[in-house]
Amino acid sequence: MSLRDGVLEARAAGRTLAALEAEGRSALLTSLADALDDPATRREVFAANAEDLAAAREAEARGKLEPALIKRLGLDEAKLDSVTDGLRQLAALPDLIGRVTVHRELDEGLILQRVTCPLGVLGVVFEARPDALVQIAGLAWKSGNAAVLKGGREARASNRALAAVARQVLEDRGIDPGALLLLEDRAEVDTLLGLHGLIDLVIARGSSGFVRHVRASTRIPVMAHADGICHLYLHAPTSSAMAAKIALDAKTGYPAACNSIETLLWNDGAGEALDAAVEALTRAGVELRGCAATRERHPGMIPATDLDWDTEYGALILAIRKVDGMDGALAHIAAHGSRHTEAIVTDDEAAAARFLAEVDAASVFHNASTRFADGYRFGLGAEVGISTDKLHARGPVGVEGLLTYRWLLKGSGNAAADYSPGGPGRRRFTHRDL
Amino acid sequence: MSLRDGVLEARAAGRTLAALEAEGRSALLTSLADALDDPATRREVFAANAEDLAAAREAEARGKLEPALIKRLGLDEAKLDSVTDGLRQLAALPDLIGRVTVHRELDEGLILQRVTCPLGVLGVVFEARPDALVQIAGLAWKSGNAAVLKGGREARASNRALAAVARQVLEDRGIDPGALLLLEDRAEVDTLLGLHGLIDLVIARGSSGFVRHVRASTRIPVMAHADGICHLYLHAPTSSAMAAKIALDAKTGYPAACNSIETLLWNDGAGEALDAAVEALTRAGVELRGCAATRERHPGMIPATDLDWDTEYGALILAIRKVDGMDGALAHIAAHGSRHTEAIVTDDEAAAARFLAEVDAASVFHNASTRFADGYRFGLGAEVGISTDKLHARGPVGVEGLLTYRWLLKGSGNAAADYSPGGPGRRRFTHRDL
Repeated sequence: MSLRDGVLEARAAGRTLAALEAEGRSALLTSLADALDDPATRREVFAANAEDLAAAREAEARGKLEPALIKRLGLDEAKLDSVTDGLRQLAALPDLIGRVTVHRELDEGLILQRVTCPLGVLGVVFEARPDALVQIAGLAWKSGNAAVLKGGREARASNRALAAVARQVLEDRGIDPGALLLLEDRAEVDTLLGLHGLIDLVIARGSSGFVRHVRASTRIPVMAHADGICHLYLHAPTSSAMAAKIALDAKTGYPAACNSIETLLWNDGAGEALDAAVEALTRAGVELRGCAATRERHPGMIPATDLDWDTEYGALILAIRKVDGMDGALAHIAAHGSRHTEAIVTDDEAAAARFLAEVDAASVFHNASTRFADGYRFGLGAEVGISTDKLHARGPVGVEGLLTYRWLLKGSGNAAADYSPGGPGRRRFTHRDL
Repeated sequence: MSLRDGVLEARAAGRTLAALEAEGRSALLTSLADALDDPATRREVFAANAEDLAAAREAEARGKLEPALIKRLGLDEAKLDSVTDGLRQLAALPDLIGRVTVHRELDEGLILQRVTCPLGVLGVVFEARPDALVQIAGLAWKSGNAAVLKGGREARASNRALAAVARQVLEDRGIDPGALLLLEDRAEVDTLLGLHGLIDLVIARGSSGFVRHVRASTRIPVMAHADGICHLYLHAPTSSAMAAKIALDAKTGYPAACNSIETLLWNDGAGEALDAAVEALTRAGVELRGCAATRERHPGMIPATDLDWDTEYGALILAIRKVDGMDGALAHIAAHGSRHTEAIVTDDEAAAARFLAEVDAASVFHNASTRFADGYRFGLGAEVGISTDKLHARGPVGVEGLLTYRWLLKGSGNAAADYSPGGPGRRRFTHRDL
């Protein structure tokens, strides 16, 4: 079967997903969670994952793989627990399809409704991170969309095992498993990107270079985050313990994640908070690179260059810069941030309010780690990704970001000319929300 | 001043628009309506418009202008009345900035909000239709956005006069008039399209060729309707009078508008309804092109070719095709429609329900003219355009389509690791909507 035919089949199968009652869609997610909690299934999945990991470790030994990839690739009980937790959380959330978001009488006997509906077919290209496949399948089902998936080639065996579990769940519940199509050949991605009109949304995850390539190669709308250059700003007065705790979490929790910080900013007066953060980060093995003013306080630190302010390390490296108060922090973030997630640690409520009001980013936090920028943590059940675009969906994207809507109008023989000033019917709109 | 500097100034001025209280933004719109209702202002605007019209008529006489353009270009009391009506309606609508659309406790002392905010700077390139300038300014102000506008060159004098009125209103109310920037040079559009990161959204109106050119020339998100190939489907049993009335309105009300129909479909049994529509349309001077089955009933009709099903005439021409019942109509629309607006006329409620459920278009209507697909008629106050995209905003785009949101999180020193299974703090999310 050609990819085009597969996508046409997915589109038809997606319509049956969309036509299910809300309970039917939720039951698919619960069934998938149950299947993935089954010890026998887990053994199969771990065996496939071990195959991928062995190949990846070999590639790493030859220097052909970045070490962060192994961490993303590996599945363990805790990761799968978190995924099935997310599926159940998502299953329990209200269904968002068919919601009437506008209900308005335009005139007697002329009723307008705006009703949410699935997008249709999602094309999702994601990194070598097999837990993502399950999250994406769950979000696609909950939102009534078919999905065509292509994961990183290093996760090939894991993805194949997981997709087989998911397709079996569909089949067991009477849905054409074609609603979830897994691609394995890289060349098929280019074919996919050419299917304008058949694929409604491409979700691109991976390096910023890859995302740029995808955007440049397709007329299909693309949802993605280009970069994750996030900052933590220590603004005096602030508790040193809180500064250290949040800096440590935001840098070391998962350095490869896009919501990890790359730069720490501090203002005059926050020196002790900085010291506490530096001590905690150093103990955790983070390489610190400081500006001149930071190095006056911490002379042993590696000097930072201008390049550091624009670098997404994705590793245990952190740049540190002293800024000229709130204005300096806002200017640095506006110039170097990627509009992903920005956080301030301070006891000064007025300063925090200004930071929350003025920073132009998808997520802006006060006294909390940037790592909370995540669909699961936000209570969305899961996420297909974190969008740094401003349109449609911004920040962590859950079910809502995978829906569109239609305007439905029911009349009784109405002509628009009747409502023109001086028109034949001389009618006036009531525009009354019902 | 370079265009880039002008856009930077617009961005800063836009922030003052966004920071106004809701009443302040509404007052801007009311002031603009008042200014445009002032007879002296109208005289100036009509004088400028007469200048544009004279040049356009001369070009038309030389065969260098499509006749539909004159109709769009001309301003009269009725058009301006409708525009100032729309401004006042928009001013009276609830303000949509700063709305909290998610308010959720993630844990004690960790509160998430999703808050609506303006996009920033809109770049709007629109056809030679000066009333659009006022509508766009009103929508930009109501949504707290700066706007950089470029209208069709045939409307240059009209646009200049209207923009001067609008900028004076801003200045009189203490807003930097740089928040509304009018471009007059076509080459500046290309410069504008290169300002990725400074322009948040490009709204492209005009021919489908122009829209394609814009999409291909910029990395900025583009909102547009590529084509408006809309259908009216007569499904038996149906009242002949209603069929004739709606067909006439949908074709002849404003043939150049994108929500006018290009093709009339009918099924077996709807012959009399077809006859009534054909009679009304013929009397109105519409050129009709029929398929073979239609011409069996109306032998004098010009034969339609396959090309007709994919043509947006924008003129008093209509293609007519007999289809094999509802399945045939849905298949024809799926194959040839542009996902803009589709309508059915029928007394069969079950058939109407199926049509409303299954047609994949921004607007789907029953027993009402496609011409109702319009922001003003939908009660949005006005529209910047009608989007045939599925993402962000679909159909008529009013204020809501010009907003984005940010996720704000207020914590008390929270680290994400505390919420990992087996993490140091062993906390669990409450995810309780407030």
